[in-house]
Amino acid sequence: MADINRFTRAGATRARAVVHGGRVYTVATSPVKSASMEVQTRAALEQLDLHLAEAGSHKSRLLTVTVYITDMACKPDMNRAWDAWVDIGNPPQRACIGAMLEGDDLIELVAVAAVLED
Amino acid sequence: MADINRFTRAGATRARAVVHGGRVYTVATSPVKSASMEVQTRAALEQLDLHLAEAGSHKSRLLTVTVYITDMACKPDMNRAWDAWVDIGNPPQRACIGAMLEGDDLIELVAVAAVLED
Amino acid sequence: MADINRFTRAGATRARAVVHGGRVYTVATSPVKSASMEVQTRAALEQLDLHLAEAGSHKSRLLTVTVYITDMACKPDMNRAWDAWVDIGNPPQRACIGAMLEGDDLIELVAVAAVLED
Repeated sequence: MADINRFTRAGATRARAVVHGGRVYTVATSPVKSASMEVQTRAALEQLDLHLAEAGSHKSRLLTVTVYITDMACKPDMNRAWDAWVDIGNPPQRACIGAMLEGDDLIELVAVAAVLED
Repeated sequence: MADINRFTRAGATRARAVVHGGRVYTVATSPVKSASMEVQTRAALEQLDLHLAEAGSHKSRLLTVTVYITDMACKPDMNRAWDAWVDIGNPPQRACIGAMLEGDDLIELVAVAAVLED
Repeated sequence: MADINRFTRAGATRARAVVHGGRVYTVATSPVKSASMEVQTRAALEQLDLHLAEAGSHKSRLLTVTVYITDMACKPDMNRAWDAWVDIGNPPQRACIGAMLEGDDLIELVAVAAVLED
């Protein structure tokens, strides 16, 4: 059995999630290209939930998340969505970095989580 | 016993360090919001030392560090503090990225380290 | 035997690759400071290949890659080089982030890969 499990579309040149050695590496953006940071953050976090579930993990198992946002002035809006979403008993280490993203993306999440235990 | 160990304040929505599977994920900024990149770097590295110690690791066990700085023109100042601090026999892989950070932060460090062996 | 294997020049304050627990952490930029994003991406990916080989891994074992580029308008050029290079049966999770880089660098790659199995 392969020791690396990749979640990807046929023919794609990148994967939305990769599992190896008990950890999942994943990325998420908002499918909704709203002009609101809070709306995009909520949608990106829902996307992250889907990727984690598909790969056998859950937000309660997150280890580290890097949050890239295009406008640091909107960090409070991102935080509001994050604080409502996070598993308060199991918060990951997080860094929030201001960067340029593609097209109308306002936020991109890059995460590492432990897979669920048997 | 939980397989994930989180170092965080009560009620916080993120952790300063998370340990899983022999590795610690951590982040550090400078508690001193000095206008000097070198001063902030020194203080952020001291903060990183504290987080690593608390989580059962040490700078000699660092695997990878991403250094985000707000002004690439100040990279030599960051490097000066880094070079004085790093365990010269055990340097991590490092990337230095120019990005926007919160408030008066000039530098943010995101690191993965191996925990100390028994 | 040390449980961390560092690939670095004597006296250097950072490593080009670090291996621990079956994974390699590495970074690559283009040795050629061309003004073309596609040319720099090709050269940075070749550099990544070298670092992975040296550390006992291969692009088919990549787990996650963060691609930092200085101009998001050039992302299609980066993608062209990436798509030609990637192991299509084994794509990693990838994030592409717009950021400032040093000097004439247009691209920097930060990657984690599984080492080759015995």
